[in-house]
Amino acid sequence: MSGRTARRRVLRITLPGGDHPGGTSARADLLAGEEPLGIRVDGSALTMTMRTPGDDLELAAGFLVSEAVVAAPGDIAGIKLCDGTACGHADHDGLGNIADVHLAEGITVAAGARRNFLTTSACGLCGKTSIQDICVLPHAALADDATRFAPAMLAGLPDRLREAQRVFSSTGGLHAAGLFTAEGDLIAVREDVGRHNAVDKVVGWALLNGRLPLTGCALLVSGRASFELVQKAVLAGIPLLAAVSAPSSLAVELAEEAGLTLVGFLRGPSMNVYTGAQRLGSW
Amino acid sequence: MSGRTARRRVLRITLPGGDHPGGTSARADLLAGEEPLGIRVDGSALTMTMRTPGDDLELAAGFLVSEAVVAAPGDIAGIKLCDGTACGHADHDGLGNIADVHLAEGITVAAGARRNFLTTSACGLCGKTSIQDICVLPHAALADDATRFAPAMLAGLPDRLREAQRVFSSTGGLHAAGLFTAEGDLIAVREDVGRHNAVDKVVGWALLNGRLPLTGCALLVSGRASFELVQKAVLAGIPLLAAVSAPSSLAVELAEEAGLTLVGFLRGPSMNVYTGAQRLGSW
Repeated sequence: MSGRTARRRVLRITLPGGDHPGGTSARADLLAGEEPLGIRVDGSALTMTMRTPGDDLELAAGFLVSEAVVAAPGDIAGIKLCDGTACGHADHDGLGNIADVHLAEGITVAAGARRNFLTTSACGLCGKTSIQDICVLPHAALADDATRFAPAMLAGLPDRLREAQRVFSSTGGLHAAGLFTAEGDLIAVREDVGRHNAVDKVVGWALLNGRLPLTGCALLVSGRASFELVQKAVLAGIPLLAAVSAPSSLAVELAEEAGLTLVGFLRGPSMNVYTGAQRLGSW
Repeated sequence: MSGRTARRRVLRITLPGGDHPGGTSARADLLAGEEPLGIRVDGSALTMTMRTPGDDLELAAGFLVSEAVVAAPGDIAGIKLCDGTACGHADHDGLGNIADVHLAEGITVAAGARRNFLTTSACGLCGKTSIQDICVLPHAALADDATRFAPAMLAGLPDRLREAQRVFSSTGGLHAAGLFTAEGDLIAVREDVGRHNAVDKVVGWALLNGRLPLTGCALLVSGRASFELVQKAVLAGIPLLAAVSAPSSLAVELAEEAGLTLVGFLRGPSMNVYTGAQRLGSW
């Protein structure tokens, strides 16, 4: 099994009620794919994440951006899925589920970081060894990004994201992250069982295509906004992060410190602006 | 800042449309609290998770169950929040955000595991160093649990869970996990910004109260069902896991191998049964 979706036999039970007599039916159901992806850097295991297969090299590249290991396409000398040639085992279990990254000369993973980079389908904060460590602020200068975003444009983004999702409607199990211009044009959309993977895939796409930092862009995520998603947006240089659902307290605190505009509960004609309201144009 | 919720000033923007003239208002909003919790075992840092403060000792205990470190209350010799006495720093930043666990004699964290146990608000798979490692099946004998659960009872659980949630309605940002008897009586409910933390809190509560294994119980989670949630349920001996939303492909695979009944899309009068349908009573 390896894919964005998996077909599975399921028993559907409906209770009787109202005009419905109730009953059961066996049918095929499409599930969101979930498989581990190992990320190996210069030959050594760096992290493993539970992700939906697809866009795996972007995911690996975006993860390295989010961890401040790389910031430009030239920082990565090579990136490919393991085919057994480098490790000498052409038939091992992880083929297709391991991304091999080779960093450019002079680019290194910080000492001590390697063993601590461990992550899964919905986390992006791993690898920190003390509570203070996770609060280190990123260095991007978001405050200089004077882009303005019209609320009427923002209100239209959730519909655009849903339209762009190819899998969500069939499995109901995937998060999405969409990157938009300030005019509301879709630049990139990626999906995953984990929100932070979907964001890493978008950021990795941007890195590999020479689009970082993402000055002037808005990032929309389908679920809630956590601390780690704010951190990923800030490290990618994205000035506005919008979420369909609620932000956490720490997400708001970090957004404020970093100069990010954070919008939550972006639903229908309304939205909550938690930080950086100066970027919202007239409404 | 330290609490289950945080109050925050927010700008609410509503676009004009229909009968609504549109407008903005500044108001106070309640956010779900999110803070790091470090878990220290026998004096050494084991893991860190981003969690909603509250029930922290249960969270730490449940994490250790989910990682197969402990299985009975006697496996833990002591557990408390760091107050600075053990570490000799009564004023350090992490006070109240570090759980100190002392294991009973003979109970140990597997060699090599310590540095790899790193987790965050929505992950529970950290600490595995190869792709094969994460697929190790738990040892609990769920197949022997012949409890039956009536679909009509299951259909009523989401309402009961929502009623029992104290915070969700005010912040919109918390996941919940509820433990129920086969008759649908609520045993315990816990909330968190991370689904897997909410489950760990319930399981930790059960451990500390001598209720493990949770034979004959049903666990309901407010979101999706991932691989790691299935793993936590199996290790706690819970025979039925129900989710309001979709399961992933790997969640279904593991549930089948472990003999867990997995129910998804538990909404209104209907539900999907992915595995273990023999536990569903007549309908």
